[in-house]
Amino acid sequence: MDTRRALLDALRDSPVSGPALADDLGVSRTAVWKAVESLREEGFAVESTADGYVAPDSPGYSAAGIEFGLDAPYEIEYHDRLPSTNDRARELAGEGADGIAVVADEQVGGRGRLDREWVSPSGGVWVSIVVRPDVSPARAPLFTLAAVVAMTDACRQAGVDAHIKWPNDVLVGDFDDGSDSEGRGGRKVAGILTEMEGEADRVSWLIAGIGINANVDAESLPPGATSLQEELGEPVDRRRFVATLLERFAALTEAPDRMDRILPAWRERASTLGRRVRVDTSNGPVTGTAVDVESPGALVIETADGTRRVHAGDCEHLRDAAD
Amino acid sequence: MDTRRALLDALRDSPVSGPALADDLGVSRTAVWKAVESLREEGFAVESTADGYVAPDSPGYSAAGIEFGLDAPYEIEYHDRLPSTNDRARELAGEGADGIAVVADEQVGGRGRLDREWVSPSGGVWVSIVVRPDVSPARAPLFTLAAVVAMTDACRQAGVDAHIKWPNDVLVGDFDDGSDSEGRGGRKVAGILTEMEGEADRVSWLIAGIGINANVDAESLPPGATSLQEELGEPVDRRRFVATLLERFAALTEAPDRMDRILPAWRERASTLGRRVRVDTSNGPVTGTAVDVESPGALVIETADGTRRVHAGDCEHLRDAAD
Repeated sequence: MDTRRALLDALRDSPVSGPALADDLGVSRTAVWKAVESLREEGFAVESTADGYVAPDSPGYSAAGIEFGLDAPYEIEYHDRLPSTNDRARELAGEGADGIAVVADEQVGGRGRLDREWVSPSGGVWVSIVVRPDVSPARAPLFTLAAVVAMTDACRQAGVDAHIKWPNDVLVGDFDDGSDSEGRGGRKVAGILTEMEGEADRVSWLIAGIGINANVDAESLPPGATSLQEELGEPVDRRRFVATLLERFAALTEAPDRMDRILPAWRERASTLGRRVRVDTSNGPVTGTAVDVESPGALVIETADGTRRVHAGDCEHLRDAAD
Repeated sequence: MDTRRALLDALRDSPVSGPALADDLGVSRTAVWKAVESLREEGFAVESTADGYVAPDSPGYSAAGIEFGLDAPYEIEYHDRLPSTNDRARELAGEGADGIAVVADEQVGGRGRLDREWVSPSGGVWVSIVVRPDVSPARAPLFTLAAVVAMTDACRQAGVDAHIKWPNDVLVGDFDDGSDSEGRGGRKVAGILTEMEGEADRVSWLIAGIGINANVDAESLPPGATSLQEELGEPVDRRRFVATLLERFAALTEAPDRMDRILPAWRERASTLGRRVRVDTSNGPVTGTAVDVESPGALVIETADGTRRVHAGDCEHLRDAAD
């Protein structure tokens, strides 16, 4: 571990003595001092007191701020503005990166699925996590499900009652009244674009590209979308939000039994299961009751003609009385 | 279609009149003349006769030579020497290419699976096909199987009795006497490295990187490997070989019912099915009788403890009398 990250960890139990930390890490006192200066330059305002260094009260939304207290095996690369966090993550992945999360305050060329534009103003949470899991590409959809669970949990911890709509939508709103593809009833608060590269039977790298409308004016968002700030009436602490997101994602995907954890966690948070749905697939619409999701992400629908499994498509939650 | 490719197609029924071709294509006679000159510069020696242009007797191993008479929807990019056809194919894929086959006479940095070196001297067939199929990454292994079938068929058409060993080896040799992982009995004549990029549920591009020891001295190859020239006692016509390879791959992967064709074609050519095998998997060895291969490429093995499905691992064909 480098001195900077070790210092950040030590500051959780501040005040921390510079000389003592230098001894602990086996580095020079100058190296510790330089690490302190480096954190300050990043905007992480370490204070010097008579008892030693003290962490700032407001760590801020920065690489150091997010890494401070983070219990997940990811390095943070922070940018005020990027064309796209996924594009930067792809660059890093191409250079061999593993376990790094690219965070930007604003994306000016954000992409969603199928190369659609993704509106990403300043104030949102735009994060792309680069990992190199030892799995086949067939398992990649499970990482998307894990990210969606993590996104939902971070929203809930921020006080917003979010739910998952199959396959990858994180929505807020009253689901008892039903919702539809225009977003009435449910309002979309987040999206995900998972990209990967690999051999036919082995993932080389995988990027979970996450976008959450955190502290964003609802007027700047597309129809059917909302933001956490809009739902709460006040901004969320993005630093804590991203930490929760990364910790939940790591808990689901870094554990040895990860593949057994993800689907149950997804099912618990899904508003789609138990509902009447219509999924527009490439083979036409499938209407019925959504009863389960199966590895690596297929929705199981009981229809009038029997059980169907759909792997992709736009899903609409129907009111019970109408198809 | 561009004038060059149209000219190549027209030359199949040569002699072809330049002015008539210009009329047919709606281009100037100068454009036809330039296309003829361009082919000649590539080494495709179009003759001018009193009746019109005539195709060369020996089309040669070049882009024009391979495209001449090719019944597959691929453009050819030919190089005398490349670091790696897959690396060049990745560049093209990144630029949006679809339906292009990169061919090199020699690779100086050829790669196999798991970043292993792949010896690729002049005289071999080193081809990487870039496609953009509308499938999920989970289906990618089927494209590898299709390529292995195409490789086997091209070897057979060249007069070499090749077989498939699960998952992706193309071998020659007497299988009734058994073979093992050192290549005794079966000798490896070809290899494949499939690479891809995509979203979690949609392939963006896929590259079938194919290496066949065609006209290569056996002494230059690793232990357990052989070449077509070594087996036949004379060189193969690489131009015809690559055309057969591409045509078989296209027939399997471009058809609407492609996913129903590939596995049966693979089974027909596999020497592994019906044999006693030992597969070294990441969970330990699995020994038994290989009875089937299932989508997207799992080997089904009847063991003493029941049926097992293995997705990856080194497979050894065992002599019937010994485990």
